[in-house]
Amino acid sequence: MTAYQQLEARKKRVSALNNAMGILHWDQQTMMPDGAAPARASVLAELSVMIHEMETGDPLSELIDSAESESAELDEWQLANLREIRHEFIHANAIPADLVEKIVMAESEAHMIWREARPDNDFKRLAPALDKLFSLKREEASIKSEIMNVTPYEAMMDRYDPGRREPQVDRIFADLESFLPGFIQQVMEKQAAAPAAVMPEGPFPIEQQRELSHEVMKIFGFPFDRGRLDTAHHPFSGGADGDVRITTRYSEGDFMKSLMAVIHETGHALYEDGRPAQWLGQPVGNSRGMTLHESQSLLLEMQAARSEEFVRFLVPTIKRVLGGEGPAWEPDNILRVYRKVEPGLIRVYADEVTYPLHVILRYKLEKAIISNDLATHDLPGAWNDLMESLVGVRPTNDTDGVMQDVHWPEGIFGYFPTYSLGAMAAAQIFAAAQKDDKNILPGLGRGDLAPLFSWLDQHIRHQGCLYMPDELIAKATGSGLDTAAFKASIRARYLD
Amino acid sequence: MTAYQQLEARKKRVSALNNAMGILHWDQQTMMPDGAAPARASVLAELSVMIHEMETGDPLSELIDSAESESAELDEWQLANLREIRHEFIHANAIPADLVEKIVMAESEAHMIWREARPDNDFKRLAPALDKLFSLKREEASIKSEIMNVTPYEAMMDRYDPGRREPQVDRIFADLESFLPGFIQQVMEKQAAAPAAVMPEGPFPIEQQRELSHEVMKIFGFPFDRGRLDTAHHPFSGGADGDVRITTRYSEGDFMKSLMAVIHETGHALYEDGRPAQWLGQPVGNSRGMTLHESQSLLLEMQAARSEEFVRFLVPTIKRVLGGEGPAWEPDNILRVYRKVEPGLIRVYADEVTYPLHVILRYKLEKAIISNDLATHDLPGAWNDLMESLVGVRPTNDTDGVMQDVHWPEGIFGYFPTYSLGAMAAAQIFAAAQKDDKNILPGLGRGDLAPLFSWLDQHIRHQGCLYMPDELIAKATGSGLDTAAFKASIRARYLD
Repeated sequence: MTAYQQLEARKKRVSALNNAMGILHWDQQTMMPDGAAPARASVLAELSVMIHEMETGDPLSELIDSAESESAELDEWQLANLREIRHEFIHANAIPADLVEKIVMAESEAHMIWREARPDNDFKRLAPALDKLFSLKREEASIKSEIMNVTPYEAMMDRYDPGRREPQVDRIFADLESFLPGFIQQVMEKQAAAPAAVMPEGPFPIEQQRELSHEVMKIFGFPFDRGRLDTAHHPFSGGADGDVRITTRYSEGDFMKSLMAVIHETGHALYEDGRPAQWLGQPVGNSRGMTLHESQSLLLEMQAARSEEFVRFLVPTIKRVLGGEGPAWEPDNILRVYRKVEPGLIRVYADEVTYPLHVILRYKLEKAIISNDLATHDLPGAWNDLMESLVGVRPTNDTDGVMQDVHWPEGIFGYFPTYSLGAMAAAQIFAAAQKDDKNILPGLGRGDLAPLFSWLDQHIRHQGCLYMPDELIAKATGSGLDTAAFKASIRARYLD
Repeated sequence: MTAYQQLEARKKRVSALNNAMGILHWDQQTMMPDGAAPARASVLAELSVMIHEMETGDPLSELIDSAESESAELDEWQLANLREIRHEFIHANAIPADLVEKIVMAESEAHMIWREARPDNDFKRLAPALDKLFSLKREEASIKSEIMNVTPYEAMMDRYDPGRREPQVDRIFADLESFLPGFIQQVMEKQAAAPAAVMPEGPFPIEQQRELSHEVMKIFGFPFDRGRLDTAHHPFSGGADGDVRITTRYSEGDFMKSLMAVIHETGHALYEDGRPAQWLGQPVGNSRGMTLHESQSLLLEMQAARSEEFVRFLVPTIKRVLGGEGPAWEPDNILRVYRKVEPGLIRVYADEVTYPLHVILRYKLEKAIISNDLATHDLPGAWNDLMESLVGVRPTNDTDGVMQDVHWPEGIFGYFPTYSLGAMAAAQIFAAAQKDDKNILPGLGRGDLAPLFSWLDQHIRHQGCLYMPDELIAKATGSGLDTAAFKASIRARYLD
């Protein structure tokens, strides 16, 4: 076997473990009896250690070196696979084992305290654990920064969105920061002058909502022969290769939250399902990072499913399954509900127009945390000030302020930008697809997703990790990632 | 770390993989979408190879040697753990990798052909694949036989029931073979003279049967906080450490089959759940082989749940949940239905009295297969002749004859005896428990399993693999495994 072939065999094994963990994680959130939690945690920890061992070490390093020196023999996909293998190795191998262990323990401690301190509005209690964790993450960022020759924060982003660099993100976010507040003002004035959006009144029995989920997933071509929908505390998309499983949660008083979550997760699942079949189990067969992943969920949730064409198509189905009647169920009202813009404190409840401001806030703060320019005890105040200046509302407590997200207590830095970069990419990709194929929008009006999906298959899903994220976006859309399509799309849907 | 400690660490890792596979297997039978089957098979195969690699090889062999030479330092449980580690090593390491691979492929081929040839009654089609597989299994048996210094067939049994030897099984089965036919005759004469057993008439809606399953499992103290009940094509007990999951299947026309399957699998699950907590993840924390495992399921299904005391307690619950009324629902009739003895062709439908004759037939034939005293093409005839002489009925086709069981096409030899040795052990253990605690039987009459389970916890479940199977039975019951208690138990329940 050549060095490259040995690497493929090794990755195949890692992938088997990752697939097993995918199902175990899904099971943990959906099926596992509560009392099995400690045993499950210990199994997952042991498998993680095994994966880490397979992903690091000198023999692997030498194997990658050899494969790179023999790379003249490799075709385009193999070369990309080797590039991804190198990339995974850097992230796995950069940090010494004792630091990895310290980080895992600090994350687990901070996360545990966060779960109790958050409802108690007790940031003081959380601060020491955060402080310790932040300091360890700075160490991680600094080590990776040197190895990768990027800034420490870029090293953090790179794990979720390979190749992502600060100047580009700064530019995109600065543009949004200057554009959105005025835009939001305009939209709110327009909405105040229009008929009020009326929420359809429940209760909506869970069984009917489940049926609606399945009908909508069928419209979106969810592959039920290699996927499932279940209920969990938080909607997610998971599973394994060839086995995409999404979850949602239902509230009897509001069917829309669950419906949009189902469409969002279906977007993630269809991306996973559409990866290049012959490369599953190899890094190049993976989805292309979190900006692209979020682009695929937001393209369905925000662009396609909130288009006027699709809403007019979907409303009769919603009315039939839920038995809805009356003015609140008219497509025009449903569109108003879906498009209601209202600045608020909580990111996960934010509409698509104010959402980027929440992300920009986190981006600014976590860059300051990683560059050690913000003391942990100053974080709540900095959060509240920024929230007021960016979004125009000021939290009155830390529960709805700095403690609302799980990311920092879980040691996740550099992930937040992908939510809004994904929203930019979604708009840009959707616009490019429509430009290439004039049947896409009329298709949505008939509930026919085939034209859109055929374009997405070709330009995004089947591409795996053949290209770097920005290369993939540029090839698919004809230009680099920017804000133009997003701004045009919200202008068209919220103002025109 | 001492050599012994290194072995423990290694086994902990193997156990994590086995636990992962336990959930993956459960998921495969209950939740997995059909289209994910190929991907799942490949993940399971890769994990199996990883386990095999961890369970074999010279470094492990030397580690076990070292630990054995340092065994003066070990306590009773550690010594037993080391003995079990040696035992697992022998079975995993005995067979060269290329033979293992040939066997796996031959099993997979034979199993696949069997699934189609069985409904087609086409033994000729299956014969070549069986022939090849049998020859490979003889090779396996012969290699293990030399290493373990036992007969080839004993080497096969030893994998499922460590320490099991032919002379003892011969003696027990010869006893049953001479006792049962006359006994069955007597029982059938008695039953012919008594009122006929009347099956309660359905349909019994699945939802109600599911509720009944849950109620009965609660009576048996099934730990729902660390276990589940689901539906699958075949009832089984599986899951992982601290997470015991059983399945059943429902037929609208007959609630009893599912009810008894649920009680049977609950017996398996409670054994798993009752293993010594501090030794889970180590071989000595495992259940004590398949004879003991079957004793725990049959003790609940055949001894406890078919006792007059328990049936009289349970019938009102059954009537309430299923809405049953009338003479067919009287406890005396239910008892008659449960105790109906009738020789038939199919093992899995056999009553507890004729069941051992089905096992004896397979025991005789598979010994002959392993000793190469029976040509594969003579197997159907030999089966039919033996069925006629032992059970008194003759198959008219191979679907209901030699092709009825999956075991041989799956390469499983030496497993069949554990079904009936388990039945012997169940009766012997139940009798010993009642002798020790006079509250057990009255407890069953009140649906109070605590006295029985407290005895089983102490004498069986918490013992893990501290002792060898026959040692455990002798310590628990005061005598070696034999037929006396079984014969007494069926005499009391079927004749007196």
